[in-house]
Order: sequence, then C-alpha cells, then structure tokens
Amino acid sequence: MNFTALEISEKFSGSIQGNGEVLISRLSKIEEAEVGALSFIAHPKYIPFLALTKASAVLVAHDLETSYQGPATLIRVTDPYIVFTQLMRSWAEFNKTEPPKGIHATALIDPTATVAKGVAIGPYVTIGPKTRIGEGALIQAHCIIGSQVTIGKGTILNARVTVMDETEIGSACIIHSGVVIGSDGFGFAPQENNTYLKTPHLGKVIIKNKVEIGANTTIDRATLGATLIEEGVKLDNLVQIAHNVEIGPHTVIAAQTGIAGSSKIGSQCIIGGQVGIAGHLTIGDNVRIQGQTGVVSDLSAGSTVQGTPAYDYRSYYKSYALFKRFPAIEKRLSSIEKKN
Amino acid sequence: MNFTALEISEKFSGSIQGNGEVLISRLSKIEEAEVGALSFIAHPKYIPFLALTKASAVLVAHDLETSYQGPATLIRVTDPYIVFTQLMRSWAEFNKTEPPKGIHATALIDPTATVAKGVAIGPYVTIGPKTRIGEGALIQAHCIIGSQVTIGKGTILNARVTVMDETEIGSACIIHSGVVIGSDGFGFAPQENNTYLKTPHLGKVIIKNKVEIGANTTIDRATLGATLIEEGVKLDNLVQIAHNVEIGPHTVIAAQTGIAGSSKIGSQCIIGGQVGIAGHLTIGDNVRIQGQTGVVSDLSAGSTVQGTPAYDYRSYYKSYALFKRFPAIEKRLSSIEKKN
Amino acid sequence: MNFTALEISEKFSGSIQGNGEVLISRLSKIEEAEVGALSFIAHPKYIPFLALTKASAVLVAHDLETSYQGPATLIRVTDPYIVFTQLMRSWAEFNKTEPPKGIHATALIDPTATVAKGVAIGPYVTIGPKTRIGEGALIQAHCIIGSQVTIGKGTILNARVTVMDETEIGSACIIHSGVVIGSDGFGFAPQENNTYLKTPHLGKVIIKNKVEIGANTTIDRATLGATLIEEGVKLDNLVQIAHNVEIGPHTVIAAQTGIAGSSKIGSQCIIGGQVGIAGHLTIGDNVRIQGQTGVVSDLSAGSTVQGTPAYDYRSYYKSYALFKRFPAIEKRLSSIEKKN
Repeated sequence: MNFTALEISEKFSGSIQGNGEVLISRLSKIEEAEVGALSFIAHPKYIPFLALTKASAVLVAHDLETSYQGPATLIRVTDPYIVFTQLMRSWAEFNKTEPPKGIHATALIDPTATVAKGVAIGPYVTIGPKTRIGEGALIQAHCIIGSQVTIGKGTILNARVTVMDETEIGSACIIHSGVVIGSDGFGFAPQENNTYLKTPHLGKVIIKNKVEIGANTTIDRATLGATLIEEGVKLDNLVQIAHNVEIGPHTVIAAQTGIAGSSKIGSQCIIGGQVGIAGHLTIGDNVRIQGQTGVVSDLSAGSTVQGTPAYDYRSYYKSYALFKRFPAIEKRLSSIEKKN
Repeated sequence: MNFTALEISEKFSGSIQGNGEVLISRLSKIEEAEVGALSFIAHPKYIPFLALTKASAVLVAHDLETSYQGPATLIRVTDPYIVFTQLMRSWAEFNKTEPPKGIHATALIDPTATVAKGVAIGPYVTIGPKTRIGEGALIQAHCIIGSQVTIGKGTILNARVTVMDETEIGSACIIHSGVVIGSDGFGFAPQENNTYLKTPHLGKVIIKNKVEIGANTTIDRATLGATLIEEGVKLDNLVQIAHNVEIGPHTVIAAQTGIAGSSKIGSQCIIGGQVGIAGHLTIGDNVRIQGQTGVVSDLSAGSTVQGTPAYDYRSYYKSYALFKRFPAIEKRLSSIEKKN
Repeated sequence: MNFTALEISEKFSGSIQGNGEVLISRLSKIEEAEVGALSFIAHPKYIPFLALTKASAVLVAHDLETSYQGPATLIRVTDPYIVFTQLMRSWAEFNKTEPPKGIHATALIDPTATVAKGVAIGPYVTIGPKTRIGEGALIQAHCIIGSQVTIGKGTILNARVTVMDETEIGSACIIHSGVVIGSDGFGFAPQENNTYLKTPHLGKVIIKNKVEIGANTTIDRATLGATLIEEGVKLDNLVQIAHNVEIGPHTVIAAQTGIAGSSKIGSQCIIGGQVGIAGHLTIGDNVRIQGQTGVVSDLSAGSTVQGTPAYDYRSYYKSYALFKRFPAIEKRLSSIEKKN
C-alpha cells in the first residue's frame, strides 16, 4: 500500500509544504522513521525530532510554527494524531491476517446455545446452556462463557476471557485477554460472632455496544439488578468495577483504577490511572479525575479533581506547592514568634 | 417462592407497619422495585426512595424515623441489611440451577491424585500428582492444580484458577476466576555486578476454611515456611499478597490492595481498597485502614489510619482540612510579616 | 543433602563461632527453625529471635554485634542473605522434581511453528503459525502463544500465560501465571461527536534475556515500534506496562505499579509498589521511587522521590512531618494574629 504525500494531504483536507510527490510506504514514530515512512507530531515534546528525522513526510498541525526546510515533506492538517490514527486503521485493515474462521473441534458448546453465522470460536472454548453468540463474533482460545450469556454482533473476546452466567455484552465490543466479567461482588454482612455472612449476588453485568475492556480487568455482577457499562466506555488494564456500579457512555478509565460498589459515573468522564472511587457516590458528566486521586464524595458535572480526599485540582496544586515549601513557611512563623 | 410480609416479619422477630398480608414474590433494590417486590433501606442515602418506591414491602430499622404512610408495608427489624442478605441467600438456594456433577471427560487428573465423592470437575482442568480434592468440592473449567495440593470439602474454584504445587486450601472456600495461588515471591539478592540473583521460593501457601478470594487476585508462596491466610478472611479482586505474609482470621481486604513480603496482619481488620502495606510489618487486631493509605510502620490493635505514611485518621483529616486552606493560611502569615 | 557448619563457612569464606561440626539438613526462617536447620539474620528486626531459635546454625554478618553464646553455631559471612539465597538455590536444584518433558498430546501446535529440542509443552497449550520456541524452554499448561512469536532458550512460561502475535521473549526468562503480553495499548483519538476512534496497535513487545514477570501482570504492545523490557528486569505481580514503554536493564518494579504510554525508565532503578508514572516521561538510571508515588515529570539519574506529584523524598518527609503538626502550627499563627 503506497501513497504520495499529496494524496494523503488531499484525503484529509491538508496542505503540503515540500515535495508532494514523495512516496509513503509505511508508518513510523518520528524518532524511528526511515526513508519511505510517514510520521506525525502531536505532542510538542516531539518537535525537536523533526530536525533529525529520516521520515519522508510528517503530519503536523496547521498552526505548528517551525523554520524547518526539509528534506521531509510536511503535511499540515487540523489534528495530526487523528489523521495518523485513521491511516493506521487503513494500514491495519489492509495488512491484517486472515481472521480465524469456524468452530474449533475442541470447543465445547452446549447444544442449547445459539451461534450465529460467521462466528469464529477458538480451541478449548466452553460455552454454556442457552447462551447466544451474535453474527461475526470472534471468541478466541480458552474463553469460558457461562449460561444464558448474550454476546452481540462482531464482538471480539481475546484469549482466556471469563464471562459468567447471564452477562449481556453488546455488539462491536473488544474484550482483552484475562478479563473476568460477572464474578460475585464483595459483599458480606457482619455477624455478631465477628464473622461474615456472604451476600449472594443475584444480579448480572450488562455491557453495551462499542465498549473496550483491557487485559486482566475485573467487573463484578450486581447484588440485585445490574452492573452497567454504557455504550462506548473504554476501560484500560487491571481496572476493578465493583457490583452495581454504573458507568455512563463514552467514559474513559485508565489502568488500575477501582470503583467501589453502587457508584454511578457520568458520561464522557476522563478518569486517570490508580484512581479510587468509594461506594455509593454519584459522579457527574464530563468529570476529570487526575491519576491516584481518592474520591469520597459526589462530584458535580464538569469538575476536575485531585488529592485524597479529592477536590478541585487547581486548589490542590496551589496547596501542594506550599506543602513543598512547608519547612521554609514554618521558619517564617518561628521568626515572627521570636519578634513577638 | 412466595411469602407474606407478616411471615417475613415473624421469621426475623420484626414488627409490621401496614398490610401484613401483602404477597412478596421477589427481591429488588428500592429504586428499581415493582409491585410484588421486597426492598430494604440500610443506608440513610436511600431513605428518599421510600416515598417513591413501588415495592410491596420494605425492610427498615426499628428506629428509622419516617412519616411514611404507605402504600408499601414496612417491616421493622434490627438490621435490615442482614435480614435482606438472609432472604437473598434463601432465594439463591431455592433458585439455583443444578450444579455441575461428575468429572468432565477432558479433565486430566494424575492417577496418583485423590478425588473424594461428590466432587465436580469441569472441562480442561488439570490436576497434578498426589493432589487431594475433598468431598463435594467444585472445580470449574480450565483450573490448573499442581502436585501435592490439598483442597478441602465443599470448596469452590471458579473457572481458570491456578493453584501451584503444595498449596493447602481449606473447606468451604470460594476462589474466583483468574486467581493465581502459589507463584514465586518477588525476592532477588543484589549482586556486585548490578544484577540480581533469584531467591528460590521453597515454601508454600496455606489457606484456611471459609476464605473467599476475588477475581485475578495473586497470592505468592513463601520463601521458606508458608504464606498464611487464616479462617474467614475475605479478599476482594486484584489484591496482591506477597511471600510469607500472614493474615489473621476474619480480616477483610478491599480491591487492589497490596501487602509486601513477611508482613503480619491481625484478625478482624478492615482494610480499604488500594492500600499499600510495606514489608516486615506487624498490624494489630481490629485495625481499620482507609482506602489508598500507605502503611510503613507497625500499627497497634484497634487503630484507624489514613495517609502515606499512615497515621491516625482523625488527625489526618484535621491536617488535610488545613492543607486545603493552605493558600489562605500562608496569606495570613504574609500579612503579619508585613506588620512586623 | 547434609553439610556441617564448617563446610558452609569454608565454601563462603566465613568464620565459625561455636561448634563447626554441627550437621545441617535443612533451611528455615529463624523464628520457625528446629534442630538441624540453618537460618540467617539479614534484617536487624530479627536479631531478638537469635536468643530463642532452635536452629543448629545461623548465618550472620561479620560485623553483627551480639553477646550470644549458643547453643546455635554462628557462621559469620559478608552478606548472610546472599549466602542463604545461594544455599536455597542449591537445595532447590538438588530437591527439584523431574520437570515435565515432551509435548502433551492435547497441545495444539501450528505445523509452521518451530519447537527446538528439549522443549516441554503442557496440556491444552496453543501455539500459532511461524512461532519459534527455543531449546529447553518450558511452556506450562494452558499457555496461549500467538503467531510469529519467538521464545528464547530455557525460558519458562508458567501456566495460563497469554503471549500475543509477534512478541519476542529472550532466553532464561520466567513468566508467571496469568500474565498477558502483547494486548492492544489504551489509545483512542477523541472524535467531534464525543466518541472515540480506536488507535490500532501495529507494534509489538520485546522482552530481553533473564527477565522475570509476576503473576497477572499486563504488558501492552506498541502503537508502532516496540514496548521494550531490557535484560534482567524484574516485574512483580499485577504490574501494568503500557504501549511503547521502555524499561532499562536490571530495573526492579514492585507490585501494582503502573507505567503509562511511551515513558522511558532507566537502568537499575528500584520502583516501589503502587507507583504511578505518567506518560511520555524520561526517568534516569539508578532512580528510586517510593511506594504509592505519582510521577508526573522527568526524573534525573540517581534521584529518590516520593509524593504525588513526586519530588525529593527527604524534602517530602520534612514537609509531611509538618503536615502532621499542621493544627498546632495554625494555632501558633492564630496566637500571633491576636497579638498583632
């Protein structure tokens, strides 16, 4: 698959600076690019690589100021990262190896399960009674799917995913290796003799369309009702979603974050890595939570927070700047005390 | 399975407010309940739902003050959450699907292993030499059990659990999907050439009765001796238990918490999520550790701590309240400096 | 395998205090040792156990001051922990059960894959097209290895490891159960309609020689190029390594730490547990990061940091000591305000 810089520029309504006829035959990071490669600059940190790169062409923003004179051709576009992402998607589509087809002889599928046409099922998969797998779904090796599960059209389960009974997964989802969906929530009623009585988990997990779930993430079933992951949610690796949590559409959650039982997260939130959110909270839409933050109270829509307990991130940074100077501040106080 | 409100009230020594003859045919959360459902209020946050619920009856505490006049019947009991939990357990017991029975043809069981009567073993399970599985245990699909392991009566291993050589698991335990028990601890002796020499892990893991372990949690084997999880301990998902850790009876640990090597945790502790406990520490009985706390020194019995490093949580909150007002406090200091 | 205390002392250039002829037949922790055992003291916390131990001999440092008179024989060496580690390695070597041999009948190996001599492959393993497994490698039960993967000589994959397409793993590595290597990174380009476009991950993961990776750890493939784990790196359990991260030789990372996309970590760093490192950062060689630290900017070689955001750990501790006394400090300020 080859393009000229000009063809790419025209496809994405860009403008050319340099030789538009240069041929692009692969995509590379700017610091590793060789002749024939197209690269991009989305983060200012990478501007210094422009002078050094061997790339034949580089996608940059319309407003990137640079005195660069070549030899690489610059293709100026509105959002270089999005254009590069779309080109990577085209490349991936073009180069992708033939996906597995059919049902492997070692897959154990209950006779009451329903498998639509075009479904591929890998070796050693087990599928329980009354489960339904939608058209074109791909179930990779060693997946374990319980009873009465539904999996939507075109959804991909990578190797070694556990989906427990009654889970509902929408269409066009991608679930990565090692994920566990539908295990019992962490609920125990304290007893008088200092032991605990296990709370049964009679609910389930519902995952809507276009959700992506990272490797080794865990999502517990509800005590009653459903743990709910709305359309377009993206969860990174090693995330913990407790029983009865609800996550609104198009919210993105980075690795190792945990959300405790029954909390409701709004739509289009951006939640950093290693964040902890306590139970029974309501987080509004478009909330941003900085990495490692500990949220212990409700957050209104549009807020950005940091700290444990969490509050406005600008205020946090102001206080933290003073925290770092605390010894000097305490000395100022001592000095005045001596004068008084 | 149907009950009247009065039957439930009598079974749990409660009192009725409203129509005792109303028929209960299912259990629901108060905000989702329909006619025929029994709900409960355990957390004050849910009191406003009482006025709106369609539930036919609601379990509330004897001392809940409310001017509510119906239509739902109130069943007043000592602890609504425990009563509801017990009803859920009855419902779960009554409705549970027939558990799997027998040993699947694809399970690979070493001829020197011992499998007691009533054990069910799922597809693609592997069981090593001299391992003993106790009466009525349930080993779900894809579990991998090493050699010389013992698993007690009635213990449940959900799908895809790894139990390595010599591990001892008691009776009535529940191990969720993706758990790894008995992998090598993280021990390396630094060498003079700046490399590391791996410490062999010759010890094992011992898990006593009635322990529950959440999905994708990891428990490492001891260097020498045993990593020890005492009776009734409950571990949530994605918890890390390092080599030679000991956890006392009926201690509860929330998701994503990690305990470093050789630390000893007391009994009946309540440890929040994302807590880190450094190595070689002793944590007393009945200690409470707030979420995201970092413990770097011993804690005496009964203490409640927060912060990194951890100390008394009330003192932490007092300091944190001032931290949030730090810019104003520093201004007060500046203002006095000008006067002096 | 029996030794006298004198034989051990001579082998490791030590000196004997007490009876050199005492016979050692096993290795134990000092607090659990019985007659016939050799123990060691490496951490001052364990010195009090010396007076109580039933061990026949104890390894201690040349400079350990003690008035201890027996009955245990003391073997004084330069580094008791390293000597004990080496003895454990000898014991482990001597006592190890015969490793599995050959290829299990249920392993599914693509005909285009290459398996060198001396490789053992457990039950239900799947190996994809054009993958090459080096001499003497051990692939335990239920591992899933994709296409065009290379695995070096003598590398051990414990049970239930996922290695996705094109991953390169060096020789003498140990990968623990539940690890996922090569899943897609967490990259999404925001769209104008508030949804996200998945970034394809066309890169791979490269793991060099003598790397050890703990249970349930996840390592994502690069967007372009490679996520790179250099020689001798040790990763604990439940660690998250994002796309395009690079980790320098002999760096050690404790459990539940997460490193975000494209960050470069130096060599011989020591990174504590539950640390978070933001994306696109450069961390120098020999950096030490305390547990739970949040790193959001570059760190120069040799620094030791703590806090979120991270800075010099001694400064952090000084400020934190004052933070704990904040209420008293604020009172001092109030008291002066009254005087002014």
